[in-house]
Amino acid sequence: MLINCVAYQRGHKLADIPVEDISEYLAKPDCFVWVALKDATPEELAKMKAEFGLHELAVEDANHGHQRPKVEEYDDELFVVMHLIDERDGKLEAGEVHVFAGHNYILSVRNGSKRDFLGVRARCEREPKMLAQGSGYVLYALMDAVVDRYFPIIDKLETELEALEERIFTKGAARSNIRRLYRLKLKVTQLKHAVTPLMDATGKLHSGRVPEVCVRSRHYFRDVYDHLSRLNTTLDGIRDTIATAIQVNLSMVAIDQTEIGKRLAAWAGIFAVATACAGIWGMNFTHMPELQWEYGYPMALGIIATLSGVLYWQFKKARWL
Amino acid sequence: MLINCVAYQRGHKLADIPVEDISEYLAKPDCFVWVALKDATPEELAKMKAEFGLHELAVEDANHGHQRPKVEEYDDELFVVMHLIDERDGKLEAGEVHVFAGHNYILSVRNGSKRDFLGVRARCEREPKMLAQGSGYVLYALMDAVVDRYFPIIDKLETELEALEERIFTKGAARSNIRRLYRLKLKVTQLKHAVTPLMDATGKLHSGRVPEVCVRSRHYFRDVYDHLSRLNTTLDGIRDTIATAIQVNLSMVAIDQTEIGKRLAAWAGIFAVATACAGIWGMNFTHMPELQWEYGYPMALGIIATLSGVLYWQFKKARWL
Amino acid sequence: MLINCVAYQRGHKLADIPVEDISEYLAKPDCFVWVALKDATPEELAKMKAEFGLHELAVEDANHGHQRPKVEEYDDELFVVMHLIDERDGKLEAGEVHVFAGHNYILSVRNGSKRDFLGVRARCEREPKMLAQGSGYVLYALMDAVVDRYFPIIDKLETELEALEERIFTKGAARSNIRRLYRLKLKVTQLKHAVTPLMDATGKLHSGRVPEVCVRSRHYFRDVYDHLSRLNTTLDGIRDTIATAIQVNLSMVAIDQTEIGKRLAAWAGIFAVATACAGIWGMNFTHMPELQWEYGYPMALGIIATLSGVLYWQFKKARWL
Amino acid sequence: MLINCVAYQRGHKLADIPVEDISEYLAKPDCFVWVALKDATPEELAKMKAEFGLHELAVEDANHGHQRPKVEEYDDELFVVMHLIDERDGKLEAGEVHVFAGHNYILSVRNGSKRDFLGVRARCEREPKMLAQGSGYVLYALMDAVVDRYFPIIDKLETELEALEERIFTKGAARSNIRRLYRLKLKVTQLKHAVTPLMDATGKLHSGRVPEVCVRSRHYFRDVYDHLSRLNTTLDGIRDTIATAIQVNLSMVAIDQTEIGKRLAAWAGIFAVATACAGIWGMNFTHMPELQWEYGYPMALGIIATLSGVLYWQFKKARWL
Amino acid sequence: MLINCVAYQRGHKLADIPVEDISEYLAKPDCFVWVALKDATPEELAKMKAEFGLHELAVEDANHGHQRPKVEEYDDELFVVMHLIDERDGKLEAGEVHVFAGHNYILSVRNGSKRDFLGVRARCEREPKMLAQGSGYVLYALMDAVVDRYFPIIDKLETELEALEERIFTKGAARSNIRRLYRLKLKVTQLKHAVTPLMDATGKLHSGRVPEVCVRSRHYFRDVYDHLSRLNTTLDGIRDTIATAIQVNLSMVAIDQTEIGKRLAAWAGIFAVATACAGIWGMNFTHMPELQWEYGYPMALGIIATLSGVLYWQFKKARWL
Repeated sequence: MLINCVAYQRGHKLADIPVEDISEYLAKPDCFVWVALKDATPEELAKMKAEFGLHELAVEDANHGHQRPKVEEYDDELFVVMHLIDERDGKLEAGEVHVFAGHNYILSVRNGSKRDFLGVRARCEREPKMLAQGSGYVLYALMDAVVDRYFPIIDKLETELEALEERIFTKGAARSNIRRLYRLKLKVTQLKHAVTPLMDATGKLHSGRVPEVCVRSRHYFRDVYDHLSRLNTTLDGIRDTIATAIQVNLSMVAIDQTEIGKRLAAWAGIFAVATACAGIWGMNFTHMPELQWEYGYPMALGIIATLSGVLYWQFKKARWL
Repeated sequence: MLINCVAYQRGHKLADIPVEDISEYLAKPDCFVWVALKDATPEELAKMKAEFGLHELAVEDANHGHQRPKVEEYDDELFVVMHLIDERDGKLEAGEVHVFAGHNYILSVRNGSKRDFLGVRARCEREPKMLAQGSGYVLYALMDAVVDRYFPIIDKLETELEALEERIFTKGAARSNIRRLYRLKLKVTQLKHAVTPLMDATGKLHSGRVPEVCVRSRHYFRDVYDHLSRLNTTLDGIRDTIATAIQVNLSMVAIDQTEIGKRLAAWAGIFAVATACAGIWGMNFTHMPELQWEYGYPMALGIIATLSGVLYWQFKKARWL
Repeated sequence: MLINCVAYQRGHKLADIPVEDISEYLAKPDCFVWVALKDATPEELAKMKAEFGLHELAVEDANHGHQRPKVEEYDDELFVVMHLIDERDGKLEAGEVHVFAGHNYILSVRNGSKRDFLGVRARCEREPKMLAQGSGYVLYALMDAVVDRYFPIIDKLETELEALEERIFTKGAARSNIRRLYRLKLKVTQLKHAVTPLMDATGKLHSGRVPEVCVRSRHYFRDVYDHLSRLNTTLDGIRDTIATAIQVNLSMVAIDQTEIGKRLAAWAGIFAVATACAGIWGMNFTHMPELQWEYGYPMALGIIATLSGVLYWQFKKARWL
Repeated sequence: MLINCVAYQRGHKLADIPVEDISEYLAKPDCFVWVALKDATPEELAKMKAEFGLHELAVEDANHGHQRPKVEEYDDELFVVMHLIDERDGKLEAGEVHVFAGHNYILSVRNGSKRDFLGVRARCEREPKMLAQGSGYVLYALMDAVVDRYFPIIDKLETELEALEERIFTKGAARSNIRRLYRLKLKVTQLKHAVTPLMDATGKLHSGRVPEVCVRSRHYFRDVYDHLSRLNTTLDGIRDTIATAIQVNLSMVAIDQTEIGKRLAAWAGIFAVATACAGIWGMNFTHMPELQWEYGYPMALGIIATLSGVLYWQFKKARWL
Repeated sequence: MLINCVAYQRGHKLADIPVEDISEYLAKPDCFVWVALKDATPEELAKMKAEFGLHELAVEDANHGHQRPKVEEYDDELFVVMHLIDERDGKLEAGEVHVFAGHNYILSVRNGSKRDFLGVRARCEREPKMLAQGSGYVLYALMDAVVDRYFPIIDKLETELEALEERIFTKGAARSNIRRLYRLKLKVTQLKHAVTPLMDATGKLHSGRVPEVCVRSRHYFRDVYDHLSRLNTTLDGIRDTIATAIQVNLSMVAIDQTEIGKRLAAWAGIFAVATACAGIWGMNFTHMPELQWEYGYPMALGIIATLSGVLYWQFKKARWL
């Protein structure tokens, strides 16, 4: 679905143009065309391919979807794939945006995400001096917008992890902790798949042989690279902490087990003594003088209580109870 | 076993030719010969070696089999080894395909897999413009076909893993989970051995000094590289998740243990109290006044029941029961 | 907030100058201006941007804060971000310092840390020969001061770890050990995030294509790099040791468990024998001759005591008790 | 001990020559001398050093032994160290072979292994066309022979691992499994020390700046590299699988423990109920009407049996028994 | 403290010279001065700095101490830091040696180790041909001596590990094993910190752009590199084995636990049966005919013994006892 199709000249909007006129505007000097599509059909892409002369393999990738994030150069055309990650009901949902960038055009195709890039266009149009850098700047603005959306999601993961860290050392929460840590791990993995390859690919847009399209905006691409690199470090940190937290959680379970074992042993001991005493005075020997004593019974109860008390006190002292 | 042997000129099929005429066709301009063998005998390979002038070491490797995936350059000849992986009855079976590619010939030898590459030839013949790129394009088409067959297998592994993730947090399935995780791990390792070296080798076909044969189709080889790279990332992700899942499974077992320990301790405590009481009133002292009371027995039962009840309630409250 | 703004010429202080005169002094030969800000407002930064002609993206980063440590080159301007880490009440608090360095100016902006860099300025002014190297030397002096502050913090972590190592092998401290190890791990991670990226970035200031500003002081930057590299190795060592310590702690818990299991089993066994004996002599058979024996009771007690003693001795020998 | 000393010219054997004549033959065109020593004494090596002009450090290494696998270039001389690994009684025994290779000589010194390289010499002499490539081809043939001997050993390790995999999921074998896995791990480590450094070193013989001696046989050295690379991957795979297997084994032990805990709890519960009932009816209250009932006893037994039966059935249903 | 100060010319000792004459001898052709200090004071270093013209940062490092091993180039001066590791009473003690090397001088400063380098000087003086290579050869000789001293220490660690490996599979040693493994790990880490950075630094002395001082002795530095590389591999191997051994030890503890659990369960079961039987015949029902039987009591004992025996035998068969 076409969202909009606009021609720009020296940083200023010329006009909303119909798709058919694109090639006409492409021929004008210092002019570039910026087209935004959403959930594009193969037919729409085919039309764009014809208008802009896009490379077949790039269009095929865009049609097929499910690409990993990447930046590919086809002669003087750039094809950029980025993942869009939205959070809904505690789950991460993935979409994709494909951007085709040439020296006088930019085409973005958004799939499976509800959040649009209208804000990016508005911001660009408010800064004609920047926009005058051409399609490279628009590519930067799109990438920057995508990357900026990763931050709140990753912040949320960090908050979630911190909340979990408090809980690890609480008794009785081991089962839910481990489940949450696992879920968190899966989310981090998903974000890593979005961030790391994009970071690697963006690195090629600001250092070494920078593609023609990006040369004028290379400092800006380094800025995007820098953000991605920060996100990547944060994700690695979270991942590492989760791994430690899983181990710590297991340790806490084992420690719990030991403590329960100690309490079980302590109470078993106390009652075993009582039962053994009672058993002994319950034997049927004829000649058991204490059985006939007037205060034999209270004495027996007293002995049992005393023994139990001493044991209890000993276990208490040894911190088994 | 010879499957077919065809000569092509400028993207079009010239003729099915007998093996003996190969060298004749190789001499024609803009012409290349595409031979497909299956489970080739040393004799067949020797004949091919003579016709195409293949390098001795490459032929030796093809005869010997059990190679790791690789791309080797012998002067202007390429020798490519790829693993074919089929799934049968939940098990992965491995075959191999060896491809010899020169500027005017392509020879593929398939071993130990039931699925053929006739579809590749058909597809190539339907697109003469592509086929006109020469033997490099055929090599691409073969590699693409092999790599495409990895996708459904890896998808299946992902599905299997997701099913297992559900089960990890279920009680009582630990034993079968761990077994399945282990089996899954072995499959992932097998696929890694197929994918990673091939990815590394394919990298050399599209960047840096690209072999002569592949120059015209280098964008296509990058596409193959890209697919392999995606598969590789997915496999690494699965592997990492399996490692975590094994740890989580162990944690769940430990948590289960703790819970059983608690229940054991709780019931042992309740019965120990009852038994101790009964033991005390079973002692044979002469002077135990409550034994003569008319309602002594019900009182005793009542006390025992009450104590047990209180304990039960306490354990319930502490979630040990 | 402006802390100070001073012009230097050939290593000597010229004058404290008002911010408005900066551009005037920048025009003088062999002269550079060193400005220090603290918790700068966007307005202050905007003024500095105008005076020194700072790059927009660098200023934006400084305004935004929360950068990872880095060294960025904008044409002939360097932008350096470093983390300031203070310890308060056993917790690490993070601040940031941003340094803009050109061939004739140096601007440092300190955020969120209470410790200033007045000592650095004083030291520099005492060594005019060094200061004559220009703004590069000041940049070195600032970096050196920041890095030097990491040492006592990391030393403290090492001391903490050593104290923990003693405790791991002590019984009964597992729960607090694991908690402390985890806290320590988090601190190490935080310091790693400060040290490692800064080390990588500093590497580019002494080898390869060294930025113009740093060329005259390159040996000094290697010294900073070397310190960072030592810190990094130490942190990696601590991290590795923590991982091992967590495993060892878990092992100690498991060993404790086994020992408790053994003691529980031993005592359960001893009392089970006593109770079984008493139970047998408490049976109500008419014909149990030993019950009528005059010394039956003491004999019974003797047998029970002997059996218990033998068992106790056996368990003692097997080191279960 | 000298094994043999032969001069070759253009791929053909000239003569068995005495050690003293070596320098004479070295002077002939297109001629090279191949000497094989076994457990060479320092004196023998000194003589060889004089004849061939070997580098002092290489000879020192050969005298000293216990080198890691390596390929060292001393001007136009190559010094190659390889590990020979034999299996005896399930243990791996390590020997070493040192090869000195110059453009017109090859000297191999074998230490501590019973298997000789006579087969290599015979094979080379049967292929004069190959041997005509000179000393580089002989070096290849020796390396190929050494590497080929690693294959059956590593195959055996794989077989051993597969046998163990079957056993991991068997109950009661945990102790012997873990011991075997550990032994296997040590063997893999030993082989890794033989294979990995040799692989890295061999890499330099076929790509980049290839030493003069090896230039004509570079495709052959790539073949050796390829074999080593396959072995290396296999060893890494085994190592990874062992690590997982150790974890799985631990999980199986924990699962076993849980099951034993459940059975213990179940039986303890059943008998606790019986004992408590018996204890109650063994109390000595005067007024316990059921004690006088004619069928009181069978009733009591019935109740106890019923309760036990119900418990047993419940535990069975919950799979605790 | 000055140990000695000697001038050499063309490999031969000229004279022991006073420190004041150093600059005089430095001016002579083909002459170099070799000074050895021990626990040098800042004043001594300042004097040396003046005589040899050492770089300020290098001298500062030497004064400060606690450097990581490194090789630094200051124009045509080399500054080398190495760790000296001695073993005393089973503990590793670390010292440092700093070497300043120029084309006509060598200055070594030894700190905190009792073992001197007199042997190195003696060996060098015995080989004038070698010593004629100049200060580079002396640097090599010193490095070689330091590295050679690591070997026996690492051999001892290996022996210690092997002794531990035997003990891991012994019952009841888990607690001391884990403690020893941990101590061993710490030692390995300390040695890694000495070996790995030195290895990396030495790599730059034999390949790539080799510093002027070392050019004539580059094969010798490769030899040092090679030794360090072997040590490094060995240390990595030990470290890896320790990690596995810790896991194996934990597994053995878990297996022990399971076995104790089984024995506890078995004995608990046997006694529970006996106690339950005794309890039943201890009930006070009026009508329990077997109580009046003449052989009731032996029969009861017989039944109890039989049941216990059967259970015992069953448990024995199932290897629980």
